[in-house]
Amino acid sequence: MADPVLYIGNKNYSSWSFRPWIGMRTAGIAFEEKLVPFDMAAGNPAFKTFSPTGKVPVLVDGDVTVWESLAILDHVARRHPESALWPEKPADRTMAMAMSSEMMSSFLALRSACPMNMRRERKQIETSRAVLADVARIQALWSQCLEKSGGPFLFGTFSIADAMYAPVINRLDVYAFETTPIVSGYMARMKELPAWREWETAGRAEPWIVDEDEA
Amino acid sequence: MADPVLYIGNKNYSSWSFRPWIGMRTAGIAFEEKLVPFDMAAGNPAFKTFSPTGKVPVLVDGDVTVWESLAILDHVARRHPESALWPEKPADRTMAMAMSSEMMSSFLALRSACPMNMRRERKQIETSRAVLADVARIQALWSQCLEKSGGPFLFGTFSIADAMYAPVINRLDVYAFETTPIVSGYMARMKELPAWREWETAGRAEPWIVDEDEA
Repeated sequence: MADPVLYIGNKNYSSWSFRPWIGMRTAGIAFEEKLVPFDMAAGNPAFKTFSPTGKVPVLVDGDVTVWESLAILDHVARRHPESALWPEKPADRTMAMAMSSEMMSSFLALRSACPMNMRRERKQIETSRAVLADVARIQALWSQCLEKSGGPFLFGTFSIADAMYAPVINRLDVYAFETTPIVSGYMARMKELPAWREWETAGRAEPWIVDEDEA
Repeated sequence: MADPVLYIGNKNYSSWSFRPWIGMRTAGIAFEEKLVPFDMAAGNPAFKTFSPTGKVPVLVDGDVTVWESLAILDHVARRHPESALWPEKPADRTMAMAMSSEMMSSFLALRSACPMNMRRERKQIETSRAVLADVARIQALWSQCLEKSGGPFLFGTFSIADAMYAPVINRLDVYAFETTPIVSGYMARMKELPAWREWETAGRAEPWIVDEDEA
């Protein structure tokens, strides 16, 4: 059977695309990548040709089309149980799902003020209390996981939770938020993943500038 | 082992609480309910005593605390496989997860303009194009599922997808949006569920008024 096709937006900016991409790549799940550049001014008409929501990412796996980053990761985790993309212990699995869901529904202040940007030079910006509250909550979540598991990743081995929070690691890094030592160490390990480096290198080399994502 | 405890907000308004509640009740999963009224003016300080995010719903199941409605439903589905809360066929399961994730991440225009409100009298309000686009997308999703499964619920038998969209059924109903026959029939069947009636009756009897949710 042919490899599934993962449609993504620009690597420099598309935080939602980064999640399934780094998850599948790190788990060694083969896929064909189709990068479709953003065309924000025109409302991304090209996305509508393959995506039920007109958004990226989308995974086309045989006759199944999956959208939403968490649903794509859950789909490939079920198709490839050997990848152990969900933590094995039931309590860890529940925590990983809860924090992945919180990533989808929350942190709007941080996400809107500090877009993911792989080529941005590390530099602080003026931020609101709401942004700082998001950053504090995220660091508390990571610390709780890392203290319990002992690392190197949130639940020991790499899981969907790490993939879901990967774009936030870039944000905390390039907007130079203060981080605790346990959080800084975790961020450094994520940035050393081969899949992270591959994505970052490709993103930095992209020619496209999305004005609204240059904070 | 003691039943898990589900913390919820007001039944009249708390759309996120309604999801796990109707899901667990309809699946016959026993739980103890703890209703904690909203105190919006004060920032809901009581929620912080049991909830890692300061929001509802939260499920406390032995020594596991679960937040986010989708994560709670996924947790109980894994604990109670006999409940069949996730559709059995892999392709249906993937679709149910994708649309449940879309519910969490999207439809902000509809959710903000048209709060869930169990005691509201059915009446149209002026709505934006963004709200109408949300309503159209939701009806397209439901129709696609119902045409494929043949009903009575989105994937045949009641599943997490029905629970996740339950508050939207109230919104389409009480704000009197135009619906297609297949959608109207589905909404009527959901509203006839014993769990729906139990929640609605309790919500209507509540004394609390949340001004910002009275559109």
